[in-house]
Amino acid sequence: MTISIILAAGEGTRMKSSKPKVLHNICGKPLLSYVIDASRCAKVENNIVIVGHGGEKVIDSINDEDITFEKQPIGEGVPYGTGFAVMQARNYIKDNSCVIILYGDTPLISGDTLNELVEYHNSSDNACTVLTAEFEDPKGYGRIIRDEKGNIHSIVEEKDATEEEKRIKEINSGMYCFKGEYLKFALDRIDNKNAQGEYYITDAVKIFKDEGFKVGAYKIEDSTEIFGINSRVQLAYAEKLMRKRINEKHMKNGVTLIDPESTYIGNDVKIGSDTIVYPGAILEGNTVIGEDCIIGHNTRIVNGKISNKVEIQISTILDSIVEDGTKVGPYAYLRPNSHIGKNVKIGDFVEVKNANIGDNSKASHLSYIGDADVGKNVNIGCGVVFVNYNGKTKSRTTVEDNTFIGSNSNLVAPVVVKEWGYIAAGSTITDKVDRGHLAIARARQVCKADWVFKKDFTKDNK
Amino acid sequence: MTISIILAAGEGTRMKSSKPKVLHNICGKPLLSYVIDASRCAKVENNIVIVGHGGEKVIDSINDEDITFEKQPIGEGVPYGTGFAVMQARNYIKDNSCVIILYGDTPLISGDTLNELVEYHNSSDNACTVLTAEFEDPKGYGRIIRDEKGNIHSIVEEKDATEEEKRIKEINSGMYCFKGEYLKFALDRIDNKNAQGEYYITDAVKIFKDEGFKVGAYKIEDSTEIFGINSRVQLAYAEKLMRKRINEKHMKNGVTLIDPESTYIGNDVKIGSDTIVYPGAILEGNTVIGEDCIIGHNTRIVNGKISNKVEIQISTILDSIVEDGTKVGPYAYLRPNSHIGKNVKIGDFVEVKNANIGDNSKASHLSYIGDADVGKNVNIGCGVVFVNYNGKTKSRTTVEDNTFIGSNSNLVAPVVVKEWGYIAAGSTITDKVDRGHLAIARARQVCKADWVFKKDFTKDNK
Amino acid sequence: MTISIILAAGEGTRMKSSKPKVLHNICGKPLLSYVIDASRCAKVENNIVIVGHGGEKVIDSINDEDITFEKQPIGEGVPYGTGFAVMQARNYIKDNSCVIILYGDTPLISGDTLNELVEYHNSSDNACTVLTAEFEDPKGYGRIIRDEKGNIHSIVEEKDATEEEKRIKEINSGMYCFKGEYLKFALDRIDNKNAQGEYYITDAVKIFKDEGFKVGAYKIEDSTEIFGINSRVQLAYAEKLMRKRINEKHMKNGVTLIDPESTYIGNDVKIGSDTIVYPGAILEGNTVIGEDCIIGHNTRIVNGKISNKVEIQISTILDSIVEDGTKVGPYAYLRPNSHIGKNVKIGDFVEVKNANIGDNSKASHLSYIGDADVGKNVNIGCGVVFVNYNGKTKSRTTVEDNTFIGSNSNLVAPVVVKEWGYIAAGSTITDKVDRGHLAIARARQVCKADWVFKKDFTKDNK
Repeated sequence: MTISIILAAGEGTRMKSSKPKVLHNICGKPLLSYVIDASRCAKVENNIVIVGHGGEKVIDSINDEDITFEKQPIGEGVPYGTGFAVMQARNYIKDNSCVIILYGDTPLISGDTLNELVEYHNSSDNACTVLTAEFEDPKGYGRIIRDEKGNIHSIVEEKDATEEEKRIKEINSGMYCFKGEYLKFALDRIDNKNAQGEYYITDAVKIFKDEGFKVGAYKIEDSTEIFGINSRVQLAYAEKLMRKRINEKHMKNGVTLIDPESTYIGNDVKIGSDTIVYPGAILEGNTVIGEDCIIGHNTRIVNGKISNKVEIQISTILDSIVEDGTKVGPYAYLRPNSHIGKNVKIGDFVEVKNANIGDNSKASHLSYIGDADVGKNVNIGCGVVFVNYNGKTKSRTTVEDNTFIGSNSNLVAPVVVKEWGYIAAGSTITDKVDRGHLAIARARQVCKADWVFKKDFTKDNK
Repeated sequence: MTISIILAAGEGTRMKSSKPKVLHNICGKPLLSYVIDASRCAKVENNIVIVGHGGEKVIDSINDEDITFEKQPIGEGVPYGTGFAVMQARNYIKDNSCVIILYGDTPLISGDTLNELVEYHNSSDNACTVLTAEFEDPKGYGRIIRDEKGNIHSIVEEKDATEEEKRIKEINSGMYCFKGEYLKFALDRIDNKNAQGEYYITDAVKIFKDEGFKVGAYKIEDSTEIFGINSRVQLAYAEKLMRKRINEKHMKNGVTLIDPESTYIGNDVKIGSDTIVYPGAILEGNTVIGEDCIIGHNTRIVNGKISNKVEIQISTILDSIVEDGTKVGPYAYLRPNSHIGKNVKIGDFVEVKNANIGDNSKASHLSYIGDADVGKNVNIGCGVVFVNYNGKTKSRTTVEDNTFIGSNSNLVAPVVVKEWGYIAAGSTITDKVDRGHLAIARARQVCKADWVFKKDFTKDNK
Repeated sequence: MTISIILAAGEGTRMKSSKPKVLHNICGKPLLSYVIDASRCAKVENNIVIVGHGGEKVIDSINDEDITFEKQPIGEGVPYGTGFAVMQARNYIKDNSCVIILYGDTPLISGDTLNELVEYHNSSDNACTVLTAEFEDPKGYGRIIRDEKGNIHSIVEEKDATEEEKRIKEINSGMYCFKGEYLKFALDRIDNKNAQGEYYITDAVKIFKDEGFKVGAYKIEDSTEIFGINSRVQLAYAEKLMRKRINEKHMKNGVTLIDPESTYIGNDVKIGSDTIVYPGAILEGNTVIGEDCIIGHNTRIVNGKISNKVEIQISTILDSIVEDGTKVGPYAYLRPNSHIGKNVKIGDFVEVKNANIGDNSKASHLSYIGDADVGKNVNIGCGVVFVNYNGKTKSRTTVEDNTFIGSNSNLVAPVVVKEWGYIAAGSTITDKVDRGHLAIARARQVCKADWVFKKDFTKDNK
């Protein structure tokens, strides 16, 4: 059995935020969620998250059945340090379990790495396996001193390191895999008799070595995975690294990103091959995009389901479905619960909200289609408004197949336009329009001769 | 006479695409087109393009009178390799011609480089001149071993290289210039008796050296020019390099790019000096922009002709003309075949399609001007719709000089508003409006006292 | 007393511009303004700006009471060089003053650096203190030869440097701090007897050393601060460096920038903590943004005052105020002099111009609110137009609290809708609407049976 203990109690003062550090997002998801996701990849059965500052907010935001929260006491006179944090999870540590120590502010750690770490650890007789990394500039990190067998002899902190030791590039990530009984052995012995007066989980290594227990090292391939976040500058940098990772995955899958550095795709988004995503696009949440689509520049899609061969130009789509061959935008806005059929055109300056639009229908420009069921082969003219609100209640409009809704007309809900109904331009429709009927509601045109000259408009219009 | 043989038969499996690799775009143009353009700069009379996988698609897409396509047989039992590909062009190779060997997936090769290569080659008595480059990390490439005269002694592949040879940074680009008769000499002798069982054009170098023919080397200045594309990650990287090259050209010409890394300008776009292009702008096709313009952020222009002192804010312009001093946007959409005159204002949420708009006219907001001829000094109010479609046919509207089209009115085509005509707000105009006439088509205002209180709206509106 | 002499006379030929070089912008402000701002940080009482090419334009653009312009003669036969430029300011140099020599094309020089330079200089008995920098690649720059005390022994130009001297990485920035009397002493002796025939201010160092005066060196920490601009490529690079500097300041203050490399914030913009700014946002002028806001992608704000908890999605805001909790966009356009109250919704395709909108009001879509005073709790339907222009004059509309303005209606200014007034959809309102009244101005709906079938629309609509 494997569990993880994820330290997420830090205040994150340098973030200058009213939000706990681990709840800040990169690529649309909280830091802590990435760590938990990675932990899950290592088949962890229980994630013990140690919260402290802003703990309640963390618990409210990140919650799932395989997560157990433990609060670390915080305040004057209370101990500090990673060791003290781990102690909060003592009750969950079983002798024969494998315990991974992780941090809520290192979102780049990958599931593959944790999986490999656990496998390596379990196949060894190490009391503890340290996850290490090689840094071109290791300054400030604890250096890994290996023994002749490649196991860890000791970890030397920067301040205690000799010049020779300082040249060692392998460093301690602070992440570990422990055998449960050994971890408890260490926790009983870690003390805070140091300059900072804190309990350090790193001390476990010395404790084990003093006892003659074996401590292994597992070196990570991609050292950026252990990058921790303490400031918004680091947050932006982590986002950049994660963006690169996500975007390279999509490119490998056959998606063209014109400029991957300026394309913002959430971690859980799926995209089919031969789809082209233009710069500035923001794809969030559980968005799924099919094959052979064009996602135009600066398009934002949140939880959209986009089928194949869809073209979207500079538009915003929220929680909606767009089917095959449909064209959206530029400057269209699909609000939640819109379902756009096949080969539809939703053109410029068109808003659709909580509406279904059937195959081959068109709303080419300057329209609002709200709370509506629109059939197939419908032509919605320019400036049409589905009037869904009377100041008191919202109602629904039905527009059946093959209807024609003239420009600048209003459909005042609740109202129905039956099949083949035809609305004359400029009409405000309040009553049902029957099959094949023309509905018209406008005044006849009257002309007043020479009015412009009499009113003397000619002078000013120049 | 100079010809090029361009190898474009590769499948490009890693692209994971249904499209042949050489048809993928960077900066809006297929990879292969860049190579052909560069080839043309070297005064090549005939470009023999060797196609294979997806060959028909390539032939359909890239076609011109100076291009000859040859299909390389593909399939089980058929030979493979660059040598075999070149053999397909054997009939076009004349003894006294100069033959450049190029690749359809190296779009960064410049015309200047090919020109210099050909000139260098022609001024020498080389059987073949190898285009070489110097790489900081030459790993994986064939190393150039030069003789004491600076000519090529041999090319050593990575796997055959000694440690000393591996340290050589000059590598073989795979591009060559051959004298025709020598190339044919080599093609007769290249075999596929190697581990891969492929015919390699590189073997020509050894064949020549064995015969005592001279092989020269021409080293490229900018080694990125030989970058070849095998994956979408590389495609994005090539696009980035090409973007840099294009954007630096414009900056040298006196164009300000606020952020050249996030400005997307097609290879054939022209821009006048003192024009400022904001981040996120996408300029495509044969777009021409004059001097002293402002191209606002995220503006997209495809085949636009923009004159001088034009300001465009976050808008989309397709196949249209905009004359001097006009302001467009933000959020305007000019669809194909629109011609906007001088000092016009096309404001926010305005679509123009297949329309002419005269000097000094204004459509400031929320209008659709489709299939129309609009004169000079015309004021098109807010919410005006040029109703060009009746469900059956599309018709055209004429609005003459000095007219005033009131807000939220419809002009139902075909219809004419003569000079100085005036349309009252909210009117649907179906008949001709004569010179200086006021046309009005709306109901008189009626008020129902205390209706709101009787209907009890006061409760809900809070 | 401290003064600065800022050299801003250069033609900047490589900019290929009709605008003087120092008037080109980075991050929305002219190069010269940055230098003057930095100079002010060093408590400079008078900034003597030496102008030449395009001098009048510089004087017109950059003007303030602590700036004195001096014109450097330009033309055939007139001397050239930095020394000659400084001579133009001779009359302002007092014996006991501290004189900083700066350049109008080095906008990255920071106020802190100049402050430190002046303090260091004033605490020394140096005739002159040279601002130096360390460059990884010092090629082309004058190298600093220090004496054993750390003062300057000499400055050796590239062309005169020995191989050993060329390896020195400390270079002359060209910026200096002089004691006034010494500067005048030097100006009397600098000549143009050199290959270029120019007067060089750098010669002062040799003059001082020859006289036995002390010349100090103050080494800048961040060597990018002395980056000078001669081309648009360098302009873009300086903008990038300045962007990084500005954006890191905001991140340190607790602002989240999703992608700082693609976020464009002017030098004078202020942003509160926990605000998130999405990629492509452009914040200009004196924009002030509160805490906990969301500034969506590609939003452009010029001189906006945005309070707390405001959410703005892909919109443009010019010279306007938005109060707490209000939501704007996507695709909204606030034009100058708009004041949007608390918890308001200004939705998609809505333009507001020169208007006040009260708390809790909504204009959710496709409306134009121009020259208007809108009260609280007002609902402005879709497609509503505030008709503020009749072709001759602009007028204002008043819409009082708790009113309901039906969709696609026109309010023809000047007009008033009193409290609780209700406008029926599709009405053109020209007269006052009293408290609680319903105003309606539209024709009754008429239906013509089977019109569509008679007209044979069914054939074509398929």
